[in-house]
This record gives sequence, structure tokens and C-alpha cells, in this order.
Amino acid sequence: MSSWSGPLTLLLSSALLLLLTSSSHSAAALKAPHLLGRHRVTRSLPQQRPVYYTTLYLDQQIDHFGFLENGTFKQRYLLNDLHWHKDNSPILFYTGNEGDITWFCNNTGFMWDIAEELGAMLVFAEHRYYGESLPFGDESYSNAKYLNYLTSEQALADFAVLIENLKKTYRGAQNSPVIAIGGSYGGMLSAWLRMKYPSAVVGALAASAPIWQFTDMVPCGDFYKIVTQDFAISGFNCSKNIRRSWMAINNVSSTDEGLQWLSEEFRLCSPLKEEDVSGFKGWLQETWVNLAMVDYPYEANFLQPLPRWPIKVVCSYLSFVTDVPDKELLHGISQAVNVYYNYTGNAECLNISLTATGNLGIRGWFYQSCTEMVMPMCTDGIQDMFEPQPWNFQAFSDECYDLFGVRPQEHWAGTVYGGKNIGSHSNIIFSNGRLDPWMSGGVTRTVSDSLVAIVIPDGAHHLDLRYNNEYDPETVIRARAVEVQYFKKWIKQSTNTR
Amino acid sequence: MSSWSGPLTLLLSSALLLLLTSSSHSAAALKAPHLLGRHRVTRSLPQQRPVYYTTLYLDQQIDHFGFLENGTFKQRYLLNDLHWHKDNSPILFYTGNEGDITWFCNNTGFMWDIAEELGAMLVFAEHRYYGESLPFGDESYSNAKYLNYLTSEQALADFAVLIENLKKTYRGAQNSPVIAIGGSYGGMLSAWLRMKYPSAVVGALAASAPIWQFTDMVPCGDFYKIVTQDFAISGFNCSKNIRRSWMAINNVSSTDEGLQWLSEEFRLCSPLKEEDVSGFKGWLQETWVNLAMVDYPYEANFLQPLPRWPIKVVCSYLSFVTDVPDKELLHGISQAVNVYYNYTGNAECLNISLTATGNLGIRGWFYQSCTEMVMPMCTDGIQDMFEPQPWNFQAFSDECYDLFGVRPQEHWAGTVYGGKNIGSHSNIIFSNGRLDPWMSGGVTRTVSDSLVAIVIPDGAHHLDLRYNNEYDPETVIRARAVEVQYFKKWIKQSTNTR
Repeated sequence: MSSWSGPLTLLLSSALLLLLTSSSHSAAALKAPHLLGRHRVTRSLPQQRPVYYTTLYLDQQIDHFGFLENGTFKQRYLLNDLHWHKDNSPILFYTGNEGDITWFCNNTGFMWDIAEELGAMLVFAEHRYYGESLPFGDESYSNAKYLNYLTSEQALADFAVLIENLKKTYRGAQNSPVIAIGGSYGGMLSAWLRMKYPSAVVGALAASAPIWQFTDMVPCGDFYKIVTQDFAISGFNCSKNIRRSWMAINNVSSTDEGLQWLSEEFRLCSPLKEEDVSGFKGWLQETWVNLAMVDYPYEANFLQPLPRWPIKVVCSYLSFVTDVPDKELLHGISQAVNVYYNYTGNAECLNISLTATGNLGIRGWFYQSCTEMVMPMCTDGIQDMFEPQPWNFQAFSDECYDLFGVRPQEHWAGTVYGGKNIGSHSNIIFSNGRLDPWMSGGVTRTVSDSLVAIVIPDGAHHLDLRYNNEYDPETVIRARAVEVQYFKKWIKQSTNTR
Repeated sequence: MSSWSGPLTLLLSSALLLLLTSSSHSAAALKAPHLLGRHRVTRSLPQQRPVYYTTLYLDQQIDHFGFLENGTFKQRYLLNDLHWHKDNSPILFYTGNEGDITWFCNNTGFMWDIAEELGAMLVFAEHRYYGESLPFGDESYSNAKYLNYLTSEQALADFAVLIENLKKTYRGAQNSPVIAIGGSYGGMLSAWLRMKYPSAVVGALAASAPIWQFTDMVPCGDFYKIVTQDFAISGFNCSKNIRRSWMAINNVSSTDEGLQWLSEEFRLCSPLKEEDVSGFKGWLQETWVNLAMVDYPYEANFLQPLPRWPIKVVCSYLSFVTDVPDKELLHGISQAVNVYYNYTGNAECLNISLTATGNLGIRGWFYQSCTEMVMPMCTDGIQDMFEPQPWNFQAFSDECYDLFGVRPQEHWAGTVYGGKNIGSHSNIIFSNGRLDPWMSGGVTRTVSDSLVAIVIPDGAHHLDLRYNNEYDPETVIRARAVEVQYFKKWIKQSTNTR
């Protein structure tokens, strides 16, 4: 496969939104309108394969780690046992991430593809504070007190309790080996579930899970370097012209005429004002990042409906020499952006406060990023194609305090999940796609016999978790086969030790 | 060694107090005066070997698992580096339990005995809400809101943060392998620290740690069976006469004259009233249990100053035939009880609201038992020498609610710490003494190459953690040697994988 190809899927786009805004934008950007309400992309989605499941709810403690708040909430989960053999056959358990679980369910075709071969029950568990699993109903996001139980530790405890409950209440499941599966933040949760609750799951597939994208673990600039590289290899002068575009925007936007020209050229829903220019550039930056994550080898609709190898298509509009006039350059950028926002041709205008599907719970992820999921990001404009922006923890912390009244604990994720010292754990597969910017924080080298890294050269964000497809690169087909082999091994181990 | 011998140490006596009161006594007993204030045994203690340490304090988050409460408190820890070689030499880290850390420091001679051989730094970390480590100062126990952060999970997080901090700030310790050591509840914490934070500690010695003394893991009656067995093997008719004593007390206490006789015979500080009889029996029951825990082969002062093999001494007062008149029987009980409460001969009267050292934080452990540390206990009067008392979770829960405004989560400890399914963990030694009632909830069979059980036939409650002594049974000498061998192995492993 050509090295510029690749796909996986993205779940951290919301993380990304925050990280980008916090590292590259002003505090004002963090307060953009899309923070204040749920928003949904209303375009018609391409056809998904139909999935069938029962929707169930389990009463969960709002607080697993204290006893004063003894209220409960209903955690949603989806269950399919069509291929399950009972008699302690396995359970594949998706550890839901920051969004509506039905959306992850529909976008994790891998589990549906292998259920029959493994005779497995499928369970998709929703993460608290997302989708319908709201601890305080519609008020869940209304204040810091209610948000206080939105942490990865509480979510892991929910999963452990749910698994225990399934085994107790589902006839024939008492000794079923459970395998955790997740992508992106959901993949981090899969890995952590195995690390923290190994009695609950016999193993985990952590797909595109940047468990090391934390302070002092990886260089803050690697993420954007990978984005840049994806564009650099996808067309002549592609990343160079994007790098030039920021200055071109600065130049053009310095006059009222230029602002009007930009608004019209990009068909923006609201006319661009001087104070919007920073947000406009942030929106473009997010667009390039999102494209890097969903650079799949076939038409797909994860964040947006897109053509196959979308970056290649984007770059086809940017392959001119690098000394073209600013407006010519920005005309190319505009056409490139339309690949992402208007592949269907139905968009009447572009809204710079939206970059991706509304199925992600952006407010929730903002809060998580502002507490324990602090992922430093930076750009230098040399090794990447973005405007230089150092990582500034203090500024980030101040923005978080303004927004939520809480301050991030910079080192906590490293302490609680062990940082780079994970060697004593077992039965975890870390898969990463080389095209995926989140590979920057992933485990890409095998740690031990049972902590295995799989790198998919042609993969973007957790391509391996998607349905198989006739355009799948050989590398992802092989990755999935290896993953299933490990699943079978873990299932066998658990049967032997029972 | 004779099979009736044995010692380790007891740290869960406070747990025991609660467990006893909750399972065998009325709700009123839970509200006994000793709950309401700190109390200290003021008798002069036998000579301890002197220990030298620096007392240090680390700022810890009051809440590690939420971000709303962002206050900190000072966690106390004691440090000795006399024998430490720097250059990443090992650290032995005592995971403090429910009491003043200086007391555990003085009663964990094993660490002091082996520090030189291992070139180890010694650290004794105080558990939050005990000793000086009070998150809300003197107000820490004043209401349910302040008590909300008293959990084992928060304590483990404190330990992990402290270890990380030591490695960062102590020159030469950056890569020091840390071994967790603890006894009783502290031993549970050691095991759990290795399970939950294996990046923080390379291994753990969990001495007399009843990690399975939870709902549905072990029979609720085993604990009292072991107590009974200790007395049965320590003297002719010893357990039989104790079993008879309850009815004798009922008989004698049914008249005012009998109540007065009991008060004088037992030299009680306050005259016994009809409504105190249940509490009086509970006090005796606790006394027998405490004796079983501290049945050490030499004079010692852990809960009380005691002779060597104290149960044997106790039983020497109870070795008559079983049909003696009630008062004769109770005279023997009175003399037996005096072995425990007045070995020094200094006690002017006996106070039935006190059974052990004031170094334990009884209120704190009551709260922990009423939240996550729910340990079912029961007696049947046939396989044990106590009055029959089934385990009644609902009644227990109601008492907890009355006392603290919280209800226990019966199954949470099993979920969060994996219950009996611990096979995927590594590098933990579970040591238990066969004389120790807490062995009922201990791991007494080796689980894997690196989850090793050591049973000390002549040991009471974590004898292996005490200073070596000329009267030590061979079995504990061997146990300690095996433990040190494992420590060396773990240290070597960690050096090799660095």
C-alpha cells in the first residue's frame, strides 16, 4: 500500500478540539457557542450496515469512591447475543468513550464482523455523562458539583460493575471471559480497565489509544508533526501551502475588503470579523487534524461524509507552487476545506464553530481535559505546518478555571495509570495507525509477550475497529487477524485457569 | 513448636470491635462511649527498641478522584535512610493502616531488622484520617461531608503520590525499587497498592491481610472458629468453659445481687446494670479475640502488655470440669480476663468500653467498615465458643446509617479489588499465621509463581512483621527469610528491566 494511504477512526476529535483551542487559540475560543448546547450535523449520513441490539440500563452509583452522594443513575448499554453460545462463551465489551454509545456501536464494525467466529456476546457500554447516561439528567452539565463525577476512574468502575452484573444476571455468562475493546479515549479505557480491573476482563484491545499523551511522556509536538506528514506525502507542496496559508490569512484579513472576500470565498455562514480571524484559523487547523484522523481508504462518514483517501483529494487543490498570490493560495484552501465540509454538495454555508459530528460530547470532553485528561500539544511551524504555539500549562489551567471552576491535575493521569511503566500488566494489544496523529501518544513498541503493539502503516485513527471493507489495506486485514488470534488465546487461557 | 503457640500482631482490632459489635451486639453497642472520643491506655509500656526517623509531611489532594474539592492536607510520613546506599537502592514502604503511624513504625521491627542487609531506605506512610494526617484537622470526624474522603482508594492514591514524590525529590532514588509492606488492613493496602499501582511498587508483603474477608468470599464463621481453636488447644476445657460462660453470665446477671457480684468479681470501674450485660459480654468476646490475635511467643505489648503465649496463661485459669457452679466458672473467667487487662498489676479497675491500645483510630475504622470494608462475621455457638449470632447485613447497614448517615456498599470491595480472582497480579507475598483469626480471610494458598502464600503454623497476627526475638518459633524465622529472598528477587528484576 502506498504510505500516504491509511485509515482508522477518530474518537478524540472533541479532545482535539479542546487541545487545539487551548494550545493554539485564545481563551475566548474555548467559550465558542458550540460549547453551550448539543449540536447535530443534520446532513444525511451514508448507509451504515444495520446492527441489532437490545438497549438496557443498569443502576450505577453516581459516586463509586465516596459514600455521601449515594444517588444512582441509569447507565445505558447495548447488547447483542445473536451469535453467543451461552455456556461461558466470551463477551466482547466496548468501553464507551466521550459520545453517544449508539454511534460507537455503529462505528465499531470489527466487533460485529467477528462475533460469529468467536460465538461472542457484544456489549457496548455508554460512558457516564454522554449520550443518555446522565447522572443528573439534563442538569448534569449545569454546575461543577454535578460535573464532579465525570472522571475516567468513575467510568472504569461503571464498566467493572456492569461486567460483574452481566455475569451474575445473564444465564450462562457466569464464567464468560470478557474482552475489553475500545478506540481512542475508549481504547485508553480498555487498556486501563485491564490494568485496574484485571479480574473483570481477561484482556483488552486498545485501538489508537494515546495513553502516553500526557505531561512528560512524549514530546508535545509529535501530534502535529504526524498531521503535517500526512499532508506532505499526499500531494505536491500540500503541507507547504497549508503552512503558508496562515500568513496569507493574516494578510488578507487585515482589511475589511479582505474579510469580506474570505467570507465569500469560504462561503461562511456568518461574515468574518476581525476578532473571528483567530477562531477561523483554529477551525482550519482542526479541519486538517480531523482529516488526518479519518484519512480512510474508502468513502466513509465518521466525522463527516468523505471520499476515499480524503487528504489526497484535499491536496489535489493545493498542489501549486508556493509563491502564488495570497488569494490564489486561499482559493485552493477554500476548495480543500470543502472536501471535508461539503463532500455531499449539500452544505449551503460553512459554520466555523462546527468541525465534526454532533455525536461526540464536546462539553464533557472539555471538562475531562480540564481535570485529568491534560494532553500537552504544541507546534513550531517548522517541523509542522501550523503557526508556532508552545504548550502553556498555566494558561490552559486558567482557561479551565474560568470555564468550569476547576483546575487540571497535570500529573495525575501518569500517577494513577502508571505512566510509561506498564510492564507488569498483561494481555493488552495496543494498535496504532501510522497516519493517525494520536499515534504520537500511543504504545507503538511491544513491551512484553502479552503487551503487544501493532502498527498499521496504512491506518488512520483506529481503522482496525471499523467494518471490513473491500478497500481495506492488507496491513489492517493482518492486524485484525492478529487481534482475533490474541482474543482466542486469552479466551483459552481463561478457560484453562477456571 | 507446639501447635498452640504462635504470634503475629493485630492491627484490625478496631475493625474487630466494630465487626463484633455489629454482628453480636445491639445497635446501642455501636454507640458506646468509646466511640465519642479519643482514648488512650495510660499504663507504662514495656521497652521498645529505639527507632530513629525523620518526620516529614507531604501535601496531598483531599480528593484524588474529583476536582471540586481541591484542598490539600499534610500527610505524615517517617523516613530513615541510615542504611540506604543511594544509587537507586531499594525503599521499603510501610502502607499505614488505621492508626498512628509512629505506633506501626515501632511495631514493625522486621523492616528495621532487614534495612541494613538490603541497604534500604525505610518509609512509614500514615493513612489519611489517622494520627496526624487529618484532611480537615480536628474537624475531620465532625460530619459525613468531611468523612467522605476516608476510603482505601484515596489512601492508596496518597501512597502512590508519595512514592512518586519521593523518587522525584530524593536524590538517588529516581529508580529505586519500592516494596510495599503492611500488616492487617495495612497488609491489604500493600497488596492492593501492588495490584492497583504496580508502577509504584515492584512487589508487596501483605502480612495477615484478610483481603477475602468480604461478602460471599469466605464463610462468615471461620474467624470465630479460629479464635475458638486457639483456646481449645491451649488448655484443658478452655474453650468449653468460655462457651459455658455466656449462659452463666445470663443466669447470674438476672438478679441485682448477681449484677453486683459480677461488678465486684471483675473489678469493673462502673457497676454493671441490666442494660450493660450485652455490652459486658461483647467486651469479653473482644477480649478473647484480641488474645487470639496477639498470642505471641514472648512478652509483648501490642494491644496490651502480655505474657508470652498469653492464651496458655489465660487457659490455666479455666481448666476445670465443665459442671462447676456459675460463679466458680465466672471467677475463672475473671482471673483469665485479668491476664489481658492487668498483666502489669497496675489496673485499678476494668473499663468495659476499652479493649485495646488507643493508638488505633477506632472511629475511622468504624466509618470504613460502614462504607466499603464490610466484613461479614457470624457465630453459631457450636463450631465456636460464642453465643450464636447470624450475620445480618440489613441490621448492620441500619446501624451505620444511624451512626454516620451512610450505608455500606456490600459488594464494592470485591468489585474494586477483584475478589478471589487475583491470578493476573504478580509479586505479592501473603503471609498468615495459623493462630490468627484473620487468616480466615487471607490468601493461604500460593496462586502463582509470583503470588505466594506463606503460612506460619506458630504465628498469630503478623508475627513476621515484628522484631526478631530469641523466642521466635523456627517457622517465623523461616518465613522472614523467604520474604527477604523474594524482596531481593524483585529488586533484581527491577534492576534488570530498567
